[in-house]
Amino acid sequence: MLLERLNWRYATKKMDPARAVPQDKLDRILDAARMAPTSSGLQPFEVIVVTNPAVRAELRAAAFDQSQITEGSHVLVFAAWDNYTAERIDAVVAQMAAERGGASEALTAYYERLKTMYLPRSAEENFQHAARQAYIAFGIALTAAAFEEVDATPMEGFDPAKVDAILGLRDRGLRAVTVMPLGYRDPAGDWLAGLPKVRRPLDRLVSHVG
Amino acid sequence: MLLERLNWRYATKKMDPARAVPQDKLDRILDAARMAPTSSGLQPFEVIVVTNPAVRAELRAAAFDQSQITEGSHVLVFAAWDNYTAERIDAVVAQMAAERGGASEALTAYYERLKTMYLPRSAEENFQHAARQAYIAFGIALTAAAFEEVDATPMEGFDPAKVDAILGLRDRGLRAVTVMPLGYRDPAGDWLAGLPKVRRPLDRLVSHVG
Repeated sequence: MLLERLNWRYATKKMDPARAVPQDKLDRILDAARMAPTSSGLQPFEVIVVTNPAVRAELRAAAFDQSQITEGSHVLVFAAWDNYTAERIDAVVAQMAAERGGASEALTAYYERLKTMYLPRSAEENFQHAARQAYIAFGIALTAAAFEEVDATPMEGFDPAKVDAILGLRDRGLRAVTVMPLGYRDPAGDWLAGLPKVRRPLDRLVSHVG
Repeated sequence: MLLERLNWRYATKKMDPARAVPQDKLDRILDAARMAPTSSGLQPFEVIVVTNPAVRAELRAAAFDQSQITEGSHVLVFAAWDNYTAERIDAVVAQMAAERGGASEALTAYYERLKTMYLPRSAEENFQHAARQAYIAFGIALTAAAFEEVDATPMEGFDPAKVDAILGLRDRGLRAVTVMPLGYRDPAGDWLAGLPKVRRPLDRLVSHVG
């Protein structure tokens, strides 16, 4: 079932501008990103959903003119925290305590230890760590789109500084890491649509220590 | 369906050593990792499946003694390429050409341009990029495990240099980035099993530019 969906999806190169992703499908894709596991449960990222045509035109210009950004109906921008801070970590702990019947000594001790590890590190190192967590959610959101029979294009090919500026991300302590247009494939105009999916055979991807 | 599976899974803290993951389930989890999308289709990672008890004991010692590593039946180690090289990229192009009816000018030109971008970069920068791709596959493999009703624990808490040494990864041009024990939860011994899953509400994770 999952494999069938993963085989159905592909990095759609041309989308049909006449078809829009329904709200309920979008909601489930976003909820899947929300449910993604992240290191210590910090969820150190946000997702910006862009539908505004003028803003999408700007994003397209910042992304080597990839047409899916304006042909699809929605663009998801995954943006990682630019740094870990005591405030951000404390907010996670406060929510956990509230939803799990109060703060425990173990909970507090775990995150205090985490702060002694993360806070002295450089913002860049912490951002790189946060970005990896965003990639877990990104992979799961791509999978969720496939389950909704919605096409998605995973994109790293954009100028992050420009995307940050267009969306005002740096002022919010965020940095764009990936972009995902959502829409419906236009197979007639898509050079990739008819080509077989290419993956390394399992015996060159997986090895065993038995 | 997908959301139901994502809600079922959790970062299992204690596994039942008496139960082993069947081969067919393992195969589908690995195949899901194989189908994960990666930047330019390079799949810049490998997965090492460790069942050997002595090796798993060593891995556990290198991972803050997390018990799932020896209580589960399998440990997947996701290891990213330590660098991009012409040889590695050429192998991807050769496979694509073979499976898509021959090399095209566009295919060759795309990857030649990629080489001019990647090969001058530092090994560390390329490794960081490869690691992010491995995280996409890691997230999808966690999802696949949930579909198989197999428990999995996403782990970053280990000494990468020690894991690399235990598995001889550096000699193969690989560096460990994540570890995933697979097995079956032991709810009676697992402090996390009964606690509600905590995630930020959607309105603090997602914003809209409409």
